[in-house]
Amino acid sequence: MKHYTNLMAYQKGISALRSVESVVYWDQATVMPNMAAGYRGEQMAELAKVVHARVTSAEYSDLLAAAEQEVAHASLDDPERVNVAKLKRSFEKQKLLPEDFVVKFSRARVAGSKAWESAKKEQNFNIFAEPLHRLVEMAKEKAAFFSGRSTPYDVLLEDFEYGTTSQDLDLVFNPLKSGLIPLIKKFSALADIEAPRLGGREFDVRKQEKLSLELLGELGFAKEDGYIATSSHPFSCTLGPSDFRITTRYLKNELMSSFMATAHEVGHSLYERGLPKEHFGTPLGEAASAGVHESQSLFWENRVARSRPFLKSWLGKFQEAFPTAFEGADAESFYRAVNRVEPGFIRVEADEVTYSMHIIIRYEIEKSLINEGLQVSEIPEIWNEKYKDYLGISPGNVAEGCLQDVHWSEALFGYFPSYALGHLMSAQLTESMEKDLGSMDQLLLSGSYDKIRSWLQGSIHRLGNLKDAPDLILDISGQRLSEKPFLRYLNNKFVLD
Amino acid sequence: MKHYTNLMAYQKGISALRSVESVVYWDQATVMPNMAAGYRGEQMAELAKVVHARVTSAEYSDLLAAAEQEVAHASLDDPERVNVAKLKRSFEKQKLLPEDFVVKFSRARVAGSKAWESAKKEQNFNIFAEPLHRLVEMAKEKAAFFSGRSTPYDVLLEDFEYGTTSQDLDLVFNPLKSGLIPLIKKFSALADIEAPRLGGREFDVRKQEKLSLELLGELGFAKEDGYIATSSHPFSCTLGPSDFRITTRYLKNELMSSFMATAHEVGHSLYERGLPKEHFGTPLGEAASAGVHESQSLFWENRVARSRPFLKSWLGKFQEAFPTAFEGADAESFYRAVNRVEPGFIRVEADEVTYSMHIIIRYEIEKSLINEGLQVSEIPEIWNEKYKDYLGISPGNVAEGCLQDVHWSEALFGYFPSYALGHLMSAQLTESMEKDLGSMDQLLLSGSYDKIRSWLQGSIHRLGNLKDAPDLILDISGQRLSEKPFLRYLNNKFVLD
Repeated sequence: MKHYTNLMAYQKGISALRSVESVVYWDQATVMPNMAAGYRGEQMAELAKVVHARVTSAEYSDLLAAAEQEVAHASLDDPERVNVAKLKRSFEKQKLLPEDFVVKFSRARVAGSKAWESAKKEQNFNIFAEPLHRLVEMAKEKAAFFSGRSTPYDVLLEDFEYGTTSQDLDLVFNPLKSGLIPLIKKFSALADIEAPRLGGREFDVRKQEKLSLELLGELGFAKEDGYIATSSHPFSCTLGPSDFRITTRYLKNELMSSFMATAHEVGHSLYERGLPKEHFGTPLGEAASAGVHESQSLFWENRVARSRPFLKSWLGKFQEAFPTAFEGADAESFYRAVNRVEPGFIRVEADEVTYSMHIIIRYEIEKSLINEGLQVSEIPEIWNEKYKDYLGISPGNVAEGCLQDVHWSEALFGYFPSYALGHLMSAQLTESMEKDLGSMDQLLLSGSYDKIRSWLQGSIHRLGNLKDAPDLILDISGQRLSEKPFLRYLNNKFVLD
Repeated sequence: MKHYTNLMAYQKGISALRSVESVVYWDQATVMPNMAAGYRGEQMAELAKVVHARVTSAEYSDLLAAAEQEVAHASLDDPERVNVAKLKRSFEKQKLLPEDFVVKFSRARVAGSKAWESAKKEQNFNIFAEPLHRLVEMAKEKAAFFSGRSTPYDVLLEDFEYGTTSQDLDLVFNPLKSGLIPLIKKFSALADIEAPRLGGREFDVRKQEKLSLELLGELGFAKEDGYIATSSHPFSCTLGPSDFRITTRYLKNELMSSFMATAHEVGHSLYERGLPKEHFGTPLGEAASAGVHESQSLFWENRVARSRPFLKSWLGKFQEAFPTAFEGADAESFYRAVNRVEPGFIRVEADEVTYSMHIIIRYEIEKSLINEGLQVSEIPEIWNEKYKDYLGISPGNVAEGCLQDVHWSEALFGYFPSYALGHLMSAQLTESMEKDLGSMDQLLLSGSYDKIRSWLQGSIHRLGNLKDAPDLILDISGQRLSEKPFLRYLNNKFVLD
C-alpha cells in the first residue's frame, strides 16, 4: 500500500495546516483583542490560500490517482478504499474553485462577521444588509462552480450533510413541523402553571464555574488532554489528535445556561475523542456529518443532563452552591424548571420542543435566499411573519430576531439544518441504544455513563466518516432518518409527565 | 514605486503566515494541553515548510530584483531602499537552506523541548544530552550552509544581533566581567546586613494579579488591544499590528516575581506598539535587534519599577494588598529588599549586578559548543566550574544549573548575549535620554511616564529596523556600544546607596 501511505502522508500535512486554522479560530474566539480582527482576516486569508494550493495541487492529484488504482480491487466498503474515495470526492470539488475566489470569500467572511457584530450591537439590520448580500451572492457563485449538480442550496448543504438534499430535509421537516405545532400550542398555555422559573436571580459566576467543572468530570471529559475557556458563544473544537477544547459562557441571571452548554460541548468533544486517532486528518478520522455531531452533543445535553434521574442526583450540588435560590426545592420542581417549555426568540436558549422550529424558520429563509431570489432586505419582515406563524410571537428587535446568530455572517448557509437533524438523529440512535442496553431511565438511574459512552463509541465514534450520515443512521437503526422517534420522545417526556 | 509596492504586498503575505506561527506559539505556551505537544510539532513543521517555500520562491526573487532596481538611485539611508536591502539580505540567507533541513530542524526543536522538559523535571541531564547534541550538530550544519561568512557562532548570532560579532561581544563582555567581579564580591558579603528579604511568606495570587493589572495601566499598556495570560516562563509576543500579548507567572512565595515580570513584558510590548504600523511585516516595522528589544524591557523593569521613587509611590498599594507582610515597612527597606544583590543560580531571578554574569557564562559555553568542539556531555562540569569562578557558588543539581533555561532546547544558540547587551544598551540609551529630558530621578519623582514613553518612541521605536542595532546605538548616543554606562549606573545605584 505504498501509494495509499504516500497519499495519507500528504493528506496529513494538509490536515495539520487546517488544524492550524482551528488554533487561530480558537484564539480569535477566546482571547483575541477586538482591535485585532482586521489583521486576523489577513492571516486567515493567507492560510486559506496555502491550504487551497495544497488541496488542488498536481501532486495531490497524482497521489490520489495512484492510490485509487491501488485500492480499486478492494470491496466498496473497504476502509482504505472509502478513505481514498472521500478524499477524491472532496478534491474534485475543491479544484473547481479558483484561488482568487477562495481568498476573496475568506476576506468577505471576516468583513461579514465584523459588520454583523456592529449591526447586532446597534440593533440595526442595515449595517449588515450589504455585507450579507455580498456573502449570499458569493455563496451562489461558489455553488455555480459545481454547476449541474442539483440546486445551489443542495451544493452548500453537502459541505455539512453529504448525501442529504433539501428534498430529504423537507421529507422530515414537514411532518416535524406538523407534529410540533400542537405541542407548542399546548405548552404555551400550560408553561406558567406547570413549571416554576429558575431565572430572575443572580447566580455567582465562580460557583457556576465550579458546577460546570464537576460536570465535565462526571461526563468523562479528561482534563489532561483538553482545555476549557469562555467565549461569547459556546463551542468545541479539535486542534489535534490529543487536543480538545471546549468553551462555555457564564450568565449571571441564567443559572442553567452555562451548565447545559457545558454538557452540550462535552458531547461534541466525546465524539471527537472517540474518533480513531490513527486516521486523524483523513476522512476515516473525521465525524460523519455536522448533524451526527449535533446528535452527540444533544444526547448529553438533553437525554442526560435534562433528564429526571440526572437532575435529581445533582439537586444537592445546586442546593449547596445556591442555598437561597434552592431553599425548599424538590427534585420534581427542579426538573420542571429546567424543562420549562415556552416559545422564545433565542434559538440557543430554546427548550427541546420549540428548538426545531427556530431551525425550520432559518432553513426556509436561507433556502429562499440561495435558491429562490429572496432579497436580503426582505429578511426582517419574513422573519417576523414566520415567528408569528410557527411560534406565535414577534421579536421586539432584529438583535433578538434575524441577527441573533453568527452563522450567516460567516457564510455558513446550509449549516442550520444540522441542528434539527441532530435532534432527530439523537432520538433515533437512542432508541437503538435502548434496544441494546435497556431503557435510558434505567441507565441513568444506575449512573451507567461508562456503558453509554462505550455504546456510542463502538457504534458511532470509532467509525469516523466511514459511512455518510444517512447510511450510518440506516445501519444502526435499521431505518432511514425519520422525525418519528423524536416526536415519540417529546410526547413521552412532555405530555405524559 | 510599483515594484516596491508589489514586493511589500508579497512580503506582508509571508509575514501574515509568520504571525500565524506566533498565534500557534502563544496557544502552546498559554493553554495547550501537554498531551498535544507531539502533534503541535507536526503543525509547526508544516507551517515552517510553507513559510520556507514562500521566502525562497522564484516569485519572491523576481519581486526583489525588480524592487531593487527601482530603489537603486535613492540614497543609501532611504527607508524604502533600506527595506528592500534588508529583505534581500534575509532572502540570500534563507535560500541557501534546503527545505528538508528546515523541516528536520523544526521537528528536532520540538523534540528537544520535550526532552528538556523531562530532563529538567527529573533533574537528569542524560535525558537531554542526545537531543541537545543533535541540535548543536544541526545548528553547525545550518551555519555551514552560509560557509565562508565568519565563524559558525557568528552566523547564528546574526539572526538576533545583525552587525555584531563575537569579537564585538568580547570587547564589551570582558571589561564588563572585570567590572562586575569586585561588585559581586562586595555584595555577597553585604547582602544580609543591608537588605531585608521579601521571600519566605505566602502572597495571595489574586492580590498579586490585581497589582500586576494596576501596573499595566500605569505603564501604559492599553488593554483594548492586548491580552494578558499566564505561562511557565513570562514572555510577550505580537500577533498582528494591533494585537499584543504578554504573560506573567504568579509564584506564591515570590511576591516581586510576577510584578517585575509584568514590568519587563510591558517594556517589550511598548516597543512593539511603538513600531510603525504601516510597515508591519517588513523590516521597517520590526525591532532593531533582540538586544535593543531587551533594552526596552529592562528599562521599564529596572530603571523604572526597581527605582526608589517608583517603589516609594507604590508602597501604599503593596501595604494595602499585604498588610501583615508589610506591617511597619518603610520605603527605604522596601527599595532595599527589591534591590537585594546576591549571587544565585537562576538567571531570571537574578539582580541587576549578578545578572550579566549568568549571560557571560552561557555565552562562553555556547560559543565553545558551536565553534570549538566542546562536547555536550562536558556541559554540566564546565557549568559548575564557571559558576564557582564567576559567582562563587555551585548549583546543587542540573535543574538549577545548565537545564534552567529553555533556549538551547529550541536551538536558540546565539540568543543569550542579547540579554546582557540589553543591559548595556539600556544604560547607554538612558544616558542619552537624560541629556534630553533631565535625570531619571526627576522624571520618576514627577511621574513623567508620558515624557519617557514619547522619547523612547521618537528616538527608538518609530525607526523600526531602519538601522542595525550598532548604528542605532551610535546614532543616539554618539558612541559605539560600551559597558561603561552600565557599570557607571550600577556603581551609582548600588555603591553610593
